[in-house]
Amino acid sequence: MGPRRVFVLSLALLLTLGAGTAAARKGPSRKAPTLTPEEYFDAATKRILGEAQGSEDGWERLVYLCDRIGHRLSGSPQLQEAVDWAAYQLAKDGLQVILQPVTVPRWVRGSASLTELAPVERGLPVLALGDSIGTGVAPVEADVLVVRSFEEATERADEAAGRILVWNVPFTDYGETVQYRTRGASEASRLGAVASLVRSVSPTSLNTPHAGNQAYADDVEPIPTAAITIEDAEHLQRVQDRGTTPRLRLELGCRNDGEAPSHNVIADVRGRSLPEEVVVVSGHLDSWDVGQGAQDDGAGVVMAMEVGRILASLPTPPRRTVRIVLWTNEENGLAGAREYAAQEASRLGNHVAALEADTGGGPTAGWRVHMADDSQGERALSALEPLVGLLAPLSAGGLRLGYAGADVGPMVRAGVLGLGLDLDTTGYWPIHHTEADTVEKIDPAVFRRDAAVMALTAFWLAETERRPVPFSPPGKEQP
Amino acid sequence: MGPRRVFVLSLALLLTLGAGTAAARKGPSRKAPTLTPEEYFDAATKRILGEAQGSEDGWERLVYLCDRIGHRLSGSPQLQEAVDWAAYQLAKDGLQVILQPVTVPRWVRGSASLTELAPVERGLPVLALGDSIGTGVAPVEADVLVVRSFEEATERADEAAGRILVWNVPFTDYGETVQYRTRGASEASRLGAVASLVRSVSPTSLNTPHAGNQAYADDVEPIPTAAITIEDAEHLQRVQDRGTTPRLRLELGCRNDGEAPSHNVIADVRGRSLPEEVVVVSGHLDSWDVGQGAQDDGAGVVMAMEVGRILASLPTPPRRTVRIVLWTNEENGLAGAREYAAQEASRLGNHVAALEADTGGGPTAGWRVHMADDSQGERALSALEPLVGLLAPLSAGGLRLGYAGADVGPMVRAGVLGLGLDLDTTGYWPIHHTEADTVEKIDPAVFRRDAAVMALTAFWLAETERRPVPFSPPGKEQP
Repeated sequence: MGPRRVFVLSLALLLTLGAGTAAARKGPSRKAPTLTPEEYFDAATKRILGEAQGSEDGWERLVYLCDRIGHRLSGSPQLQEAVDWAAYQLAKDGLQVILQPVTVPRWVRGSASLTELAPVERGLPVLALGDSIGTGVAPVEADVLVVRSFEEATERADEAAGRILVWNVPFTDYGETVQYRTRGASEASRLGAVASLVRSVSPTSLNTPHAGNQAYADDVEPIPTAAITIEDAEHLQRVQDRGTTPRLRLELGCRNDGEAPSHNVIADVRGRSLPEEVVVVSGHLDSWDVGQGAQDDGAGVVMAMEVGRILASLPTPPRRTVRIVLWTNEENGLAGAREYAAQEASRLGNHVAALEADTGGGPTAGWRVHMADDSQGERALSALEPLVGLLAPLSAGGLRLGYAGADVGPMVRAGVLGLGLDLDTTGYWPIHHTEADTVEKIDPAVFRRDAAVMALTAFWLAETERRPVPFSPPGKEQP
Repeated sequence: MGPRRVFVLSLALLLTLGAGTAAARKGPSRKAPTLTPEEYFDAATKRILGEAQGSEDGWERLVYLCDRIGHRLSGSPQLQEAVDWAAYQLAKDGLQVILQPVTVPRWVRGSASLTELAPVERGLPVLALGDSIGTGVAPVEADVLVVRSFEEATERADEAAGRILVWNVPFTDYGETVQYRTRGASEASRLGAVASLVRSVSPTSLNTPHAGNQAYADDVEPIPTAAITIEDAEHLQRVQDRGTTPRLRLELGCRNDGEAPSHNVIADVRGRSLPEEVVVVSGHLDSWDVGQGAQDDGAGVVMAMEVGRILASLPTPPRRTVRIVLWTNEENGLAGAREYAAQEASRLGNHVAALEADTGGGPTAGWRVHMADDSQGERALSALEPLVGLLAPLSAGGLRLGYAGADVGPMVRAGVLGLGLDLDTTGYWPIHHTEADTVEKIDPAVFRRDAAVMALTAFWLAETERRPVPFSPPGKEQP
C-alpha cells in the first residue's frame, strides 16, 4: 500500500485511457486558432456552464465519497481509500495525476465517556478534541468550574485548581469562538485545572457535540480536553449559577499513534501555451472522524474535481495549467499544505492564484480575496473586476477581502493570490465537525452552481491574456 | 413510597402553610363585594398579568424540573419525584392538592445498538419505540428494504419478507407522518419483515433520533421496532437507489416490565360561588426518557402550575373552581387522562372547559378550540369571542378549530369544551422526543407570556357570568 502502488495504478490508467481522454472522445476538436480569442472564450465558458450544470457526475461522486467511503481522518484507511478513489476518477477524466507523499499525524479517538455525578447522574455526549491526551489508567473525576470567557477564568483563577474547567462561550463568529477550542486546554492547564471541556463551537445544537483540533502551548502540562454540547454547557452553567457545584467524571481513550503515510492528490489540466503558470483549485480530502465529511470538505473536494473534469473536457485547454489539488491533513496538522508549498517553493512565483472551497456546500456569493497584506488585497480586488461580470449570471459576482482557506495559507503568505469560495455558512456551522455532516443536507443544484463558479473562475484565471495579480511576497512594495 | 406518603405530606404542608397562603400574605384583601363585577374583573386581570409576567417563580420551577429532576418516563423514579415536587409546590402556593392514583405501564428501554454491515460498517444512532419488544437472545441481522410510503410497501410486498423494513417518510405534518411511527411495525410485520425502523418524525435533524410510542395491531406478530435518524434513512435510501442492498444488525434490550403506581396531580383554586363548576388547566408531567422533557411537556406543566399560583394569589378567587391537572402517562398509555375522565364521569357536565398546553414552549397565537363534533366547535368559537379581545394585547387573540390535546381528549369526546394552547411549533418538532428537548431552548419571556395567556383564559372562563359553552355530548343536538 502507500504512495507507490496508487501512483503506478494512476499511470497505468492514464496509458490505458490514453485514447479515451475527453478531448479525443468529443469528436472533431474546434481548435482555438480557428476562433478569435473572444470567440474561444465565449464558446468555452458556455461549454463549462453546460457541463457543470447539466451533468450528474459531480453529485454522484460526492454521494459515493460520503456513502461508500465516509469520514476520513488523517491516518485512517478511509483517507487512503479516498486518495486512491479521487486519483482514479481524475485520471479517468483525462488529467495528469500525481500523488504527492505527505507524512501525517495519526491521532486515534478511542472510546470516550462523560458522566455527570452531581447534581443528577447521567451520561453526556462528548467528543475528544484533536491531539488531546487520554485520561490514562483512571478517569478524571472532579468538581466543575464553568466560565464564559478567558477573562472570567482569570478572575476566578483561585477556584480553578483541581477542577474540570468548562468553557461555556456562546458562538459569535467562528474565528473568534474557536479560540476556546484551540487554546482552552492550555489556558485551563495554566490555572491548574485537571481537564478542559469546551462548549461546541456552533450557533445551534440538537445536543450535538462538535469535534475539532486543539494545540497545547509549549509551556503547559497537557490535560485531557473534549467538546460537550451547548445544552450541557448551559445546564452546568445554570446549576452553578443557582449555587450548586456540578461534578463530572471524564474518560478519554484517545492517543497519538505516531505518523502515517498519506498524499496530496495533484491533477493537472496542462496549459496550452503557458503550462508552467499554474492556477491551483483545491479542497481537502481528509475530514474529522464523524459524519461523512460531506460539507467539510467533501463538497469542496468534488467541486475541485468537477473543475478538473470540466476543463479537461474542453477541446482546447486554456493557456495556463489548471491544477486540482486535494489536500491531506487539513484538519489536524496541515501537513499536506506545508508539503506542497515546500516542494513548490521555487515555483510559487508561477502560481497565478490558489483557490480553495472549504466552508460547506451552501450557495456561493463569489470569492474571498486574500493576499499576504491587505493593501495588496485591495489592488487584487480591482484586478479581478472582470470576474464580477463573468460570475454575475450565477449570482456569484461578489468579491471581498477575506480568508482564502487553511490549505492555501502557506502560498498566500508567500505572496500568491488566494481565493476562498465565499459560501453561505448558515447551514454549515451547525453541522461542522459533527455526525450530522452528511450529504443529504447539500442541494445538488446549489452544488452544481458552486462548481460552475469555481470552474469559470479557474478558466478565466488560466485563459486571460495578462496575469491579473502579480506574485507579491509580503513587504515587497508593488511597482 | 407511592400515593399515600405524598398525599399526607401535602396535607401536612397545607396545614402548616395555612397562615401563609397567598391571599393572607398579600395584606388587606380587596373583596369583590366592594367592587362592581367589571371593576373586579379589570383589577384581577391586571394582577394576573403583573404576576405572570413579573415573577421569576415559573421559570425557576421549569429550570428545576429540567435540571434537577430531568426526564421522567412512566414507571421511573424521576416521574414520582416530579409528582412529589409539583404537589409540594402547588400546596405551597395555597392550592388544595390531591394525588389521584393511576396505574401506568412500565416499559424499559434497556440497551440498543444498530450497526450497518454493508455497504460500510459503522454504528447508527437508534431509539427503540415505546412498547417495542426486544430482539431477544440474538440480534436481528438482515438485508434492508427502504420504502417511502405504506403504498410502496404494499407494491413491494414480495421483497419485504425476512427484511428489515425502513420507513423513509419525509415529515409533512405531525399527525400525518407520525402514522409511520405508530403503525409502521404492524404493517411491516404483516409483510413478513423481521424488524421495522422508522425515519424520525421531524422536519430537520442533526443526526437526531426521535423516540415515541407505537402500538402493535391485535392481529400481527410483534417485531422489534425503533427510530433512526433522517440522515441514516436517506443514506440507506441512496444506497438502495443505486443498486446496493444495505444490511443491518439490530439489538434492542427494551421490554415491558409490568405496571407501576403513579398519580395525576390535581390542585384546586376553589371557586367563590360556583365551586362545583370546574375549569381544568393542564399539562403532562411524564416525558420520554431522553433530554429533559422541557418542551414535552415541562413547559406546559409549569404554565399550568403558574395559572394555579397566580389565581391562588388573587385576594378573591373567581366564581368557578380552576383545577390544575398535571397528567401522568401521556406519552405511552394515557392512563392518567382515562382515570380522571372515569372518576369524574358523573361530574363532566360541570366541567366548563379543559385546557391543555402540550406543544412546546414557543409563542402562542391563542387557542385551538375542540368539541366532540365540529358544528359544536363552530358554535364554541362564537361563544368564546370575548377571549379574542382579552388576549389581543398579548398577541394571542387567535381562536381556531383544532386538536386540544391528548389528555383532555376523553373529556372532549364526552362533551366538554377542549382548548389547546396554540403554540408556534417551528422549534418544537425538531426537538420533540429527543435528547435535545432541554430548557435553554425556551425563551423565559415567551414562557411567561404563554402562562399569562393561559391564566387570563382560565380566569375569564371561571369568572364570566354565564358559562360560555354548554356541555355537549356528541350526537345530542344543541337547543
